[in-house]
Amino acid sequence: MPKVGVVLSGCGVYDGSEIHEAVITLLALNRAGAETICMAPNVDAAVVNHLTGENVAGETRNVLVESARIARGEIRDIAEVTVNDVDALIFPGGFGAAKNLCDFAIKGSECSAHPEVARLVREVISSKKPLAAICIAPALISRILGDDKLAHKLTIGTDEETAEALEKMGTDHIDCSVNNYIVDPANKLISTPAYMLAGNIREAAEGIEKTIAELLKMI
Amino acid sequence: MPKVGVVLSGCGVYDGSEIHEAVITLLALNRAGAETICMAPNVDAAVVNHLTGENVAGETRNVLVESARIARGEIRDIAEVTVNDVDALIFPGGFGAAKNLCDFAIKGSECSAHPEVARLVREVISSKKPLAAICIAPALISRILGDDKLAHKLTIGTDEETAEALEKMGTDHIDCSVNNYIVDPANKLISTPAYMLAGNIREAAEGIEKTIAELLKMI
Repeated sequence: MPKVGVVLSGCGVYDGSEIHEAVITLLALNRAGAETICMAPNVDAAVVNHLTGENVAGETRNVLVESARIARGEIRDIAEVTVNDVDALIFPGGFGAAKNLCDFAIKGSECSAHPEVARLVREVISSKKPLAAICIAPALISRILGDDKLAHKLTIGTDEETAEALEKMGTDHIDCSVNNYIVDPANKLISTPAYMLAGNIREAAEGIEKTIAELLKMI
Repeated sequence: MPKVGVVLSGCGVYDGSEIHEAVITLLALNRAGAETICMAPNVDAAVVNHLTGENVAGETRNVLVESARIARGEIRDIAEVTVNDVDALIFPGGFGAAKNLCDFAIKGSECSAHPEVARLVREVISSKKPLAAICIAPALISRILGDDKLAHKLTIGTDEETAEALEKMGTDHIDCSVNNYIVDPANKLISTPAYMLAGNIREAAEGIEKTIAELLKMI
């Protein structure tokens, strides 16, 4: 039974993990016979009211604690996870991936990655274990691999401004439709646009399910 | 395109909607070609830390605002929804269904239902539109239909104590396995145990997907 690490970044599209993407990921992995190991960084983060779309002034919530909602309590601090614990790693999207795992949402190509997230990504890549990134999460991977001057291919769909920011960090960005995914075989890297392009949950699921089938084949 | 109301109760298994059940519901409905109308009551509720399982003293969150995380912001106050807006209604589970839509989790068979939730359930049942309840949500339906002295059948799986509480409120409780569902054809009522019995997300999905196929057939 392959063990796949699922890196969460909170609970909700505007300040955490995109919930649909995270649950579709967990369901597809479980149906394929994989064991899932949910994890998140133990940091506080800003809160967005998902009814109004507005920031909630003065409130913070802990990313590990909120991610535990998606994981039904079964979750680990990413600082305690090493490459030996997983056969593959996957990052659902949502603004949390670009706000809490790195600060791409604020600083664009000048962003930095959370150190423990960057450490685990580097361990997985250098161990030649496969890694998948969904939606905006490829921006985080771009930052880490770009810092290492490692040539690599990723997609965030077709948004020109976001694609340019990834190119600036060192990614060879490949446009991709919502129901498809991009493979970088040299780095065992897979990415799919999901809600960067999806108009509904069905469209997001199609690309994610294909991505996970490919991820498991690469183990 | 049938319109199906999805009644949420927060965001997280211990104080809101069970997130897996809610997302599996939205995905199955969307894949079957249904339009989903998410709704929740506009009330404040207690908060559980999902990492520790403990109540967070002194903190409340708004059920409509937190449910909006699952609905990606597309959600209505249930007080503004009438039976004319939907062709069917479905309740995902999670403790929120038993804490925020009614107080079954605290008072058992002595519980009361949220008045706007009770109103919409009564409208749907008396209009002979189908209604599905997942996991612990049948306890809420039991309260409402029991108060009306309406003979009906539901399942919460096989837990004896919970089943007895439903019987006490007026339900004919039928035991049911995790991958199955119970139909009450006279009231167009469908129920499935999901995480009342499921050991993993795949098991929960199987019963929910069958339930939704049945719900849509009944429209």
